Amino acid sequence: MAVKVLDESFGKVVLIKLKGGKVIRGVLHGFDQHMNLLLENSVEIFDDGKTSDLGSIVVRGDNVVIISPPPA
Amino acid sequence: MAVKVLDESFGKVVLIKLKGGKVIRGVLHGFDQHMNLLLENSVEIFDDGKTSDLGSIVVRGDNVVIISPPPA
Amino acid sequence: MAVKVLDESFGKVVLIKLKGGKVIRGVLHGFDQHMNLLLENSVEIFDDGKTSDLGSIVVRGDNVVIISPPPA
Amino acid sequence: MAVKVLDESFGKVVLIKLKGGKVIRGVLHGFDQHMNLLLENSVEIFDDGKTSDLGSIVVRGDNVVIISPPPA
Amino acid sequence: MAVKVLDESFGKVVLIKLKGGKVIRGVLHGFDQHMNLLLENSVEIFDDGKTSDLGSIVVRGDNVVIISPPPA
Amino acid sequence: MAVKVLDESFGKVVLIKLKGGKVIRGVLHGFDQHMNLLLENSVEIFDDGKTSDLGSIVVRGDNVVIISPPPA
Amino acid sequence: MAVKVLDESFGKVVLIKLKGGKVIRGVLHGFDQHMNLLLENSVEIFDDGKTSDLGSIVVRGDNVVIISPPPA
Repeated sequence: MAVKVLDESFGKVVLIKLKGGKVIRGVLHGFDQHMNLLLENSVEIFDDGKTSDLGSIVVRGDNVVIISPPPA
Repeated sequence: MAVKVLDESFGKVVLIKLKGGKVIRGVLHGFDQHMNLLLENSVEIFDDGKTSDLGSIVVRGDNVVIISPPPA
Repeated sequence: MAVKVLDESFGKVVLIKLKGGKVIRGVLHGFDQHMNLLLENSVEIFDDGKTSDLGSIVVRGDNVVIISPPPA
Repeated sequence: MAVKVLDESFGKVVLIKLKGGKVIRGVLHGFDQHMNLLLENSVEIFDDGKTSDLGSIVVRGDNVVIISPPPA
Repeated sequence: MAVKVLDESFGKVVLIKLKGGKVIRGVLHGFDQHMNLLLENSVEIFDDGKTSDLGSIVVRGDNVVIISPPPA
Repeated sequence: MAVKVLDESFGKVVLIKLKGGKVIRGVLHGFDQHMNLLLENSVEIFDDGKTSDLGSIVVRGDNVVIISPPPA
Repeated sequence: MAVKVLDESFGKVVLIKLKGGKVIRGVLHGFDQHMNLLLENSVEIFDDGKTSDLGSIVVRGDNVVIISPPPA
């Protein structure tokens, strides 16, 4: 199920909420069944709306709470 | 067991309580045996009753505490 | 072992204590070997004894600390 | 190993310490290899020595820290 | 590896440090590959050096941080 | 997926964010499918930008939140 | 990968950082694929640089964050 949704989000901007409250936005360039994610042009988004460039990152799947794919 | 309940809730509004206290409401459009969930038109519901639009989201199952299917 | 006890509690009122302190009471209508539970007519019970209706819910088993089956 | 010890404690009073500090005493009437426990006539024991009746309960094994079998 | 060390400590006094800071000392009378431990004549040791008798206990292995076997 | 990204980062500087907030930078000299990492010439980076030399280290994969490979 | 690094550190002094912040230094005399470690002549190192003798210890691998092998 998750794989199908992530598959449709490939190459698109996704919003990721992690355990501990970190929020990350980036272009989805890879994933696997553990929800490990590869994001390009990613930024961390802070509570005040400011962002910090992260560039290309791998997110370990066990930290993920919510993935928001782009609007259809 | 969980799969059967979720199957009957397919396409209906469900309320999800996550570890850490986050509460989310959305239309169930997918799930798997890990309780990974795909919700459409979802909103986060805050303690004061206010909501914040989340749209379409994937919730990683290991964060789930309680799923409330819609009344039968 | 747990399955046998839960089997005998089927259709009866059980009290569930979750990690983090949440207490829930409801009629057991389903379960599996992970202690995922399906409760009907469930309520959350607060420290002061007040309750809040939850209706029909699925509890993800990894949150469960204690299940009290009804008296024999 | 644990199974053998629990087997010898069957039908006897055991003291259970859980993650988070909860302490429970009850008669061991069942267990499995995950240390899921079935206790009868169980009570929670508070820091001040007071107790609260819990009756018959299932304890999910992943919450267990220490099990004290009865003296041989 | 752990099994070999524990095997050599069989029947001897070991010191156990648990997650959350609890410290326990006892005679090792059993163990398995999960580091579940059976200790006899065990005591909990507090920060101020005082001890509290625990007698015979099973420690669930996932709580263990450090096991100190007796000096060779 | 993660393996492919890490493979391309082999011998290059990566930035690692761990659970609990620790940030480490080092040259990636090894990894496996659990995201266990071998870093050479690594430093811990503190909030104020100061660094502390760690040299050659193994990071246990379950602590990893984010891995930033070097810019392509 | 981790096994190879640990293999090369056999019989040498390693520095171990654990979840929760404990820091331990000792001579590596054993390990397995879970990163369970056997350390000889080990000491705990406190924030102020003071140390406390631990002697021979087994560290359960799931507590490990970072292992620093000795300089090559």
